[in-house]
Amino acid sequence: MPKYILAKYIPEYSGREITLKGWVYNIRKSGKIWFLIFRDGTEFVQCVVLKNEVSEAVFEMKSTLTQESSIAVTGVVQEAPRQETGYEILVKNIEVYHVAEEYPIALKEHGIEFLMDHRHLWLRSRGPYAVMKVRAELEQASRDFFNARDFTLVDSPMFTPNAAEGSTTLFETKYFDRKAYLTQSGQLYSEAAIMALNRTYCFGPCFRAEKSKTRRHLTEFWMVEPEMAFFDIHDDMDLAEEFVESLVKRVLGNCKRELQMLERDTAKLEGITRPFPRITYDEALEILHRKGFEVEWGEDFGAPHETAISEEFDKPVMIWRWPAATKAFYMKRDPEDERYVLGVDMIAPEGHGEIIGGSQREEDIDVLLRRIETEALSREDFEWFLDIRRYGSVPHAGFGLGLERTTGWMCGTRHIRECIPWPRTMVRLKP
Amino acid sequence: MPKYILAKYIPEYSGREITLKGWVYNIRKSGKIWFLIFRDGTEFVQCVVLKNEVSEAVFEMKSTLTQESSIAVTGVVQEAPRQETGYEILVKNIEVYHVAEEYPIALKEHGIEFLMDHRHLWLRSRGPYAVMKVRAELEQASRDFFNARDFTLVDSPMFTPNAAEGSTTLFETKYFDRKAYLTQSGQLYSEAAIMALNRTYCFGPCFRAEKSKTRRHLTEFWMVEPEMAFFDIHDDMDLAEEFVESLVKRVLGNCKRELQMLERDTAKLEGITRPFPRITYDEALEILHRKGFEVEWGEDFGAPHETAISEEFDKPVMIWRWPAATKAFYMKRDPEDERYVLGVDMIAPEGHGEIIGGSQREEDIDVLLRRIETEALSREDFEWFLDIRRYGSVPHAGFGLGLERTTGWMCGTRHIRECIPWPRTMVRLKP
Repeated sequence: MPKYILAKYIPEYSGREITLKGWVYNIRKSGKIWFLIFRDGTEFVQCVVLKNEVSEAVFEMKSTLTQESSIAVTGVVQEAPRQETGYEILVKNIEVYHVAEEYPIALKEHGIEFLMDHRHLWLRSRGPYAVMKVRAELEQASRDFFNARDFTLVDSPMFTPNAAEGSTTLFETKYFDRKAYLTQSGQLYSEAAIMALNRTYCFGPCFRAEKSKTRRHLTEFWMVEPEMAFFDIHDDMDLAEEFVESLVKRVLGNCKRELQMLERDTAKLEGITRPFPRITYDEALEILHRKGFEVEWGEDFGAPHETAISEEFDKPVMIWRWPAATKAFYMKRDPEDERYVLGVDMIAPEGHGEIIGGSQREEDIDVLLRRIETEALSREDFEWFLDIRRYGSVPHAGFGLGLERTTGWMCGTRHIRECIPWPRTMVRLKP
Repeated sequence: MPKYILAKYIPEYSGREITLKGWVYNIRKSGKIWFLIFRDGTEFVQCVVLKNEVSEAVFEMKSTLTQESSIAVTGVVQEAPRQETGYEILVKNIEVYHVAEEYPIALKEHGIEFLMDHRHLWLRSRGPYAVMKVRAELEQASRDFFNARDFTLVDSPMFTPNAAEGSTTLFETKYFDRKAYLTQSGQLYSEAAIMALNRTYCFGPCFRAEKSKTRRHLTEFWMVEPEMAFFDIHDDMDLAEEFVESLVKRVLGNCKRELQMLERDTAKLEGITRPFPRITYDEALEILHRKGFEVEWGEDFGAPHETAISEEFDKPVMIWRWPAATKAFYMKRDPEDERYVLGVDMIAPEGHGEIIGGSQREEDIDVLLRRIETEALSREDFEWFLDIRRYGSVPHAGFGLGLERTTGWMCGTRHIRECIPWPRTMVRLKP
């Protein structure tokens, strides 16, 4: 590793002279003193430049260093209680790598489209920086959670051979002399994988060609999908609840600095402890009717419905036991009432929408064949999937958690396009 | 979590009665005793069924239980030194979930295409099971390595807007009313991300439409790509070496059981310690000439050359300082000789080929512009990438490690299609 200090570690060097390498975030001048807000991608630090502590050439950099110029700063770490980090640097020397051209993103307000056009630069700003850190923490927290519970990571394929679920939201790709489709979920493959490895998860990009411009949709998003042999719907909900609680704890514990930068009201997150409320679809419908929504039994819920239901609770709420027609063919019918399936959606608080969708899966090949027929799906496309029920079928369940929506909830970010480094939507494919 | 024991934990229950849930891997009969090799995706365990220890109905299951039937086995854990795990189960009861139809994969040899057509079932066999466990270990080991060194995970996009590098091996996708291309590497995006986050890595699927049927190629493969601000080519090689050493250590430490199942000669892996040999392209060329290969200066190496060079060493070998024409436009020219670029390939031992490709990146916008012009690339497509050099350009470097090739090396698997759960090649898109 090259020999220089990352800014996040300056508390360990209090009173000592160190060298930092990074960029000029901002400069404030005041006569015989100037202040350089330095960032290196691990922390933002105030550097103090005093006329009698540096060479004249360095002191005059106050007029030549532009925003985002790259520099090496050598100086002494001093305690500075009024600084967010508690420390600042008394500068001894500055070496310049590159003086930046006039930077397009000033430290003021810009329109979101302008910022998204400059996403490759906007990531350097405090807000996007903090969101990316929280996202990365959630990704590792997810992996740690499942790794600690005997899950094996089994990557699902991105290319799938046919439009198995007959969806209009599939992306089609030229695949040599034929066509392939991009995956929307790894679930069907995970159902095969757990018969080999018991508990598995996949965690990768998923694709949906949704002609939607809402703040909740991306064409490319990341989903973590655990799948478990010998789990029923209740085990599934227990795991989902434990998982989400663990994510919140981890972000509160490890992302204090980022939540501070984002001015996130952490009280809203601190209350997220098990148990979470569990209501049936029918109970959710009652809430909606009480609140004046006109939804008939059997209809799916939209974003306004989800928000209205979530407002009744200060924790994520699990809605389960859905009308069969609202859900996918592979969900297990409720043995007590065939009109329902053992599916569950988890709705985040504060209007952040559905973050989890899951179910117990149908393990009976005859029931599955009837559903494939009723829904006019191609049986041939599902032969390999049906094999799972031919050779040692077992009860099993799983769910998928959307990473961007969860990141948005943690960060208090309204639009999930800010929760992925390089957002892709119906109207955005760049940079 | 449901209340039953995973087979990997049976040593903790020695002498106690437990219930396992899983599948019949094999049955051997011998008069008043029969043996059931049980698997649950966490371990393979021998279960002993004695006539006078179980009901008649359970004893007669020797004739009705088929390979891959799903069962719950209750019994007492006993020490059994001759068993691979050191334990076996003295069966008290068996409950049957599902009697499997006649299983297409017998415990004998099948052709590779037949097995790949049944990949969803083949994963249940010991070999593929063990390879998947090693792959998952390598993935988490990679993340742990970079997380511990202040890297932030920044996922690169899968959809890219243009065929920037002009490659004929891009997959083209219909993207609403235009075209998109699937990513071949996250590097260019990571180069932007490190200016925001200092050290980043991405780890996701990459796509190459290579019309190649060799055992080293997949159309969809996973790559981990670290990128580091303020690293030069030597720092880059130091990190690559430390990374690969750590992967080998981790697999040797945590995958003993899997390497045993795969009959891997672990002595070959135990010697993989730093430093690794570093030779220049010119030195590699000398080796090839000495061994009778006709390669002219400036030519790239193919698989036979890589193998020939790797045979000279019992560790991975790094070949660096390549002729510029063999490498991509973004690699930094060697300041001491413009004919070379500061790129590096790491070749695995035992003929497993290139596992790492990396370089110091060109940080000078003028040099980069000349290369874009010389190589007839579209400058417009690269404007955002050039911005990285306009606003605080810094020295930086990175590399990419191919997960499947590395898994193949660890497992001693010759064909990388066996090192990904759901292989996709020019001729294979199913299951």
